[in-house]
Amino acid sequence: MSDTRRVEAFSDGVFAIAITLLVLDLHVPAFDPGRLLHDLGHLWGAYIAYVSSFLYIGVIWLNHHNAFTRIHRIDWGLQWANLGLLFTTALLPFPTAVLSAALQSGATSDRRVAVVLYALIAGAMAATWLCLFHRLSHHPELTDGDDGAAFFGRERRRAWLGIGAYGVAACVGLIYPIAALPFFLVLPIFYALTSEGTR
Amino acid sequence: MSDTRRVEAFSDGVFAIAITLLVLDLHVPAFDPGRLLHDLGHLWGAYIAYVSSFLYIGVIWLNHHNAFTRIHRIDWGLQWANLGLLFTTALLPFPTAVLSAALQSGATSDRRVAVVLYALIAGAMAATWLCLFHRLSHHPELTDGDDGAAFFGRERRRAWLGIGAYGVAACVGLIYPIAALPFFLVLPIFYALTSEGTR
Amino acid sequence: MSDTRRVEAFSDGVFAIAITLLVLDLHVPAFDPGRLLHDLGHLWGAYIAYVSSFLYIGVIWLNHHNAFTRIHRIDWGLQWANLGLLFTTALLPFPTAVLSAALQSGATSDRRVAVVLYALIAGAMAATWLCLFHRLSHHPELTDGDDGAAFFGRERRRAWLGIGAYGVAACVGLIYPIAALPFFLVLPIFYALTSEGTR
Amino acid sequence: MSDTRRVEAFSDGVFAIAITLLVLDLHVPAFDPGRLLHDLGHLWGAYIAYVSSFLYIGVIWLNHHNAFTRIHRIDWGLQWANLGLLFTTALLPFPTAVLSAALQSGATSDRRVAVVLYALIAGAMAATWLCLFHRLSHHPELTDGDDGAAFFGRERRRAWLGIGAYGVAACVGLIYPIAALPFFLVLPIFYALTSEGTR
Repeated sequence: MSDTRRVEAFSDGVFAIAITLLVLDLHVPAFDPGRLLHDLGHLWGAYIAYVSSFLYIGVIWLNHHNAFTRIHRIDWGLQWANLGLLFTTALLPFPTAVLSAALQSGATSDRRVAVVLYALIAGAMAATWLCLFHRLSHHPELTDGDDGAAFFGRERRRAWLGIGAYGVAACVGLIYPIAALPFFLVLPIFYALTSEGTR
Repeated sequence: MSDTRRVEAFSDGVFAIAITLLVLDLHVPAFDPGRLLHDLGHLWGAYIAYVSSFLYIGVIWLNHHNAFTRIHRIDWGLQWANLGLLFTTALLPFPTAVLSAALQSGATSDRRVAVVLYALIAGAMAATWLCLFHRLSHHPELTDGDDGAAFFGRERRRAWLGIGAYGVAACVGLIYPIAALPFFLVLPIFYALTSEGTR
Repeated sequence: MSDTRRVEAFSDGVFAIAITLLVLDLHVPAFDPGRLLHDLGHLWGAYIAYVSSFLYIGVIWLNHHNAFTRIHRIDWGLQWANLGLLFTTALLPFPTAVLSAALQSGATSDRRVAVVLYALIAGAMAATWLCLFHRLSHHPELTDGDDGAAFFGRERRRAWLGIGAYGVAACVGLIYPIAALPFFLVLPIFYALTSEGTR
Repeated sequence: MSDTRRVEAFSDGVFAIAITLLVLDLHVPAFDPGRLLHDLGHLWGAYIAYVSSFLYIGVIWLNHHNAFTRIHRIDWGLQWANLGLLFTTALLPFPTAVLSAALQSGATSDRRVAVVLYALIAGAMAATWLCLFHRLSHHPELTDGDDGAAFFGRERRRAWLGIGAYGVAACVGLIYPIAALPFFLVLPIFYALTSEGTR
């Protein structure tokens, strides 16, 4: 058992870096003279991917912050659930970059692959939240008591919803890739709005 | 409502990373033997863009630091105004890189695009400050009382000035791109000097 | 002598950045239209290298966290043992990238080089732990007393085991490179499991 | 005036990122099958540049840590001296990369340029230390009193020595570039050794 200060500091570091590294995927195009505006316009897919991932990591940080105000001690299981969460968060720039590239390339089959990959990793992140919330709901001694445990029990619903919605996005994306993009933008916004409700 | 410690830590992380990542846009040129000095000289646009953005992020951090010494609690609106500020800050390396590239390429139309893009994003950052200051000036309970609210009410003027000045820089840049560069260097210096006056 | 707060903050920063930078080695392949899935599949070596290194840095952070809960003061020798540890950690993305590249290239001799390089640097990291633990076991005044010194004395065994196991992995890799990969995945897992046991 | 906590946190962030980003200049060579070992050997210049810069930033962090244990308040001048220090630190990966590239290229004139550039920026960093120490030696109210001011007065000598030694390295490098490299490795080691003596 240990206090939560360094876990928060390390997690803040990973979140801050992951959210800031996303900008490295906005490559300046190798434009011909006079074509910069046109070539910047071609990056629309990269902009959508960037905003989606920025919002998602921002919301994850908010949720992490909210959750840890109620967590008083960390045990081994929680430590690893948290590392799992950091793993999926730190990985997010990769499917974001794949998605950017596929949206700029024309082939539908590539977009399908990219959209499903993004949905899988975003869904895996929701699954690590589920692990975290599940453990906390059964260990009131790690939180601020039975109220905290009950709170984390309710939070599991939001994690399940994320797993389900990214699953649906993957299925939709298999048929019609572009139709999955609104999911990627709307889900973080949904989490952002409901994060307030549950605080 | 929550205390400000983790918001400051996360924001410090994003500022520190964004300001340090700027150096990645100073690419070592792929020089022919014996041509390193000449090719390094060609990067003058990148150096101006680097110094402008470093100064701007440095000043933003100073302002953030000054503001948060007067902020005692964070609510949902403030949380999102702060994330908006981090969004524009984390994005700044992208227009900086576009500006570097356009200053090294010869076409005036490309420089026009790059200068306007930089001014828009730098102006959007000033606009997120305006949101932050506006909210704080109407919520004395988030600050150290009525003095704090009055302070943030006055700070709005500096944010409006930034929006206006980057707007003028965008207009000037549409006509004569190079003439917008002094704005990009002078504005952070102005903010740096006045940050002391209002503290 | 100085307190440990800033050493922990700086180390957390380096660990957080090194673990998050690993994702930059997952390059999006320059795929031909319709070939994204196939080309992503070719990156299997990069995925193994990524997961191994993420786990290793995650476990190092856990160990560091556990160790520093028992360290109360830092002297000059400890400061440099810690910087040595950060050196090997910050360097790990390089052998990881070399390993990824070699696993994707076909030549056995290249894989041999990459595997040995990875084992050497991972083993050097275990050696810096040994220095740290050795010093702490002889300086109870830096820890929480004789119990702490005894604890760090026992921890040296785990460091020796790491040096030995990565040494064996290097030898195995010289003969049959692919056979060294399980070592790279299993060792961090072993450390993860035993980090709980000794806390 | 403000307390030093956030200044330390922000500076730790920049130091941690700059020291970790250095690894990105250790590019995996685009080797032909079977040539990895040979091509890794060609990177010797990059390894020297990496170790020099890692040591230098590590020592700067140590010095910063030592200095701030004696600094109790930050004023505007100190804030900007510190930002100047972060500027030169965050910039260091650029001359490091230039030096790596020039050592791998054959032309002596390129190495000359790279060595002088590195010496200039490393010397500029020593000059920002001088500003910091000078201000502190004249403002005992920012430190822990007259003892602190006297301490920082003495520290100015080490900063002058850095400016002088990097100046000599630049001159030596103009004549015989390779002869400047030992300066780059030895100076951080000298600072490391004397940082203990003055703490």
